Amino acid sequence: MPVDKGLHHQIEAIRSRLLEMAGIVETMIEKAKEALVERSTDSVDEILALDGDVDRLEMEVDEACYAAVALGQPTAVDMRFLVAVMKITADLERMGDSAVNIAQSVDRLADEPPLKPYVDLPRMFELTRGMVRDVLDAFVRRDAALAQEVCRSDDDVDNLYGKVFGDLLALMREDSAAADRGVQLLLIARNLERIADHATNIGEDVVFYVEGKDIRHGGPEGEAG
Amino acid sequence: MPVDKGLHHQIEAIRSRLLEMAGIVETMIEKAKEALVERSTDSVDEILALDGDVDRLEMEVDEACYAAVALGQPTAVDMRFLVAVMKITADLERMGDSAVNIAQSVDRLADEPPLKPYVDLPRMFELTRGMVRDVLDAFVRRDAALAQEVCRSDDDVDNLYGKVFGDLLALMREDSAAADRGVQLLLIARNLERIADHATNIGEDVVFYVEGKDIRHGGPEGEAG
Repeated sequence: MPVDKGLHHQIEAIRSRLLEMAGIVETMIEKAKEALVERSTDSVDEILALDGDVDRLEMEVDEACYAAVALGQPTAVDMRFLVAVMKITADLERMGDSAVNIAQSVDRLADEPPLKPYVDLPRMFELTRGMVRDVLDAFVRRDAALAQEVCRSDDDVDNLYGKVFGDLLALMREDSAAADRGVQLLLIARNLERIADHATNIGEDVVFYVEGKDIRHGGPEGEAG
Repeated sequence: MPVDKGLHHQIEAIRSRLLEMAGIVETMIEKAKEALVERSTDSVDEILALDGDVDRLEMEVDEACYAAVALGQPTAVDMRFLVAVMKITADLERMGDSAVNIAQSVDRLADEPPLKPYVDLPRMFELTRGMVRDVLDAFVRRDAALAQEVCRSDDDVDNLYGKVFGDLLALMREDSAAADRGVQLLLIARNLERIADHATNIGEDVVFYVEGKDIRHGGPEGEAG
């Protein structure tokens, strides 16, 4: 078998497992949202089990990337793909951890009456889940414009986070009985904001993979001199 | 110039800049601790400026890694080194972001009297800073045992985080006037816990780089079947 064909076969397998991994993370976010809104702890164990799948896939995909590097004589473009994948698996794995943290907070909230109607938090869930879906689409389709759009969506999530944070703090300032629920909801918002950050990191990796241009930290245009 | 010599020269330069980057992160953690304990906002701007250096170094080191991959015909061991470096820069960069978040919380706390004497938080700062230092030492000295020791220290940080979290929540439950300070201190503890997670991630990368063995998620021994 020619080496090239083997390498491209490996790369296709890697791509498909990366998408599987991202799909699981999306499911975890969706289930965590449902659990919060429906005040149900049914899916908490399910989210933990899915995190195990994410962890396992991270290791498998990374191993496949190393094997491809070692055996496949990758070109510069293949190499950018493989390094991007190894960065993306790390981000997806941490998104999974954040989803688990959220599920644990939801679990703690389920016994008490809701502190306030949830409006902005479900919106944060939807936005971050959309970012995960879109940024992986961008990677698979080599669509740098879509990846940059995902990076821009991060501002919307940050703004919602600021609003949720301010609202919750106001409730906790008024009534110390809101402390426990307020803190758990703050942590949920914080974890969502972090998932969005990871999606943004992936977006930057996608742009580098597609265009060979590092847009992190506002560069290269953002750099003075 | 022979390619090999060029590659090893590049690798030495990469190693030295990675250490510079880690040294800056350590300084940021130290300055944030001082600012919290001394209730001073003097070093907040300094921490922000240092984060700019960390961001710049991340991009420079990653670029040097890609250049080394593209030009240097790396061996499998060199390749593991270069991939490890690109993962480590991402972790160091996020540690820098966490240090900035801490500095912003310290800034918000400086105008108000301390909620309680700081005992566990300074200890968390010291532990996490030690983890950053040790894990980079482990990388440079190819010391897998030290890297695993750093991974184990993460439990100490997690335990302290749990204690700090419980103490702060108890104060906030008793008195709603503690809400703002309590939340900022919680966020500081959370960011320290996260820095320790990143150091643990680096520890796992170091073990893989040195031994070619993936110890993440308790594997390979931890895997059933």
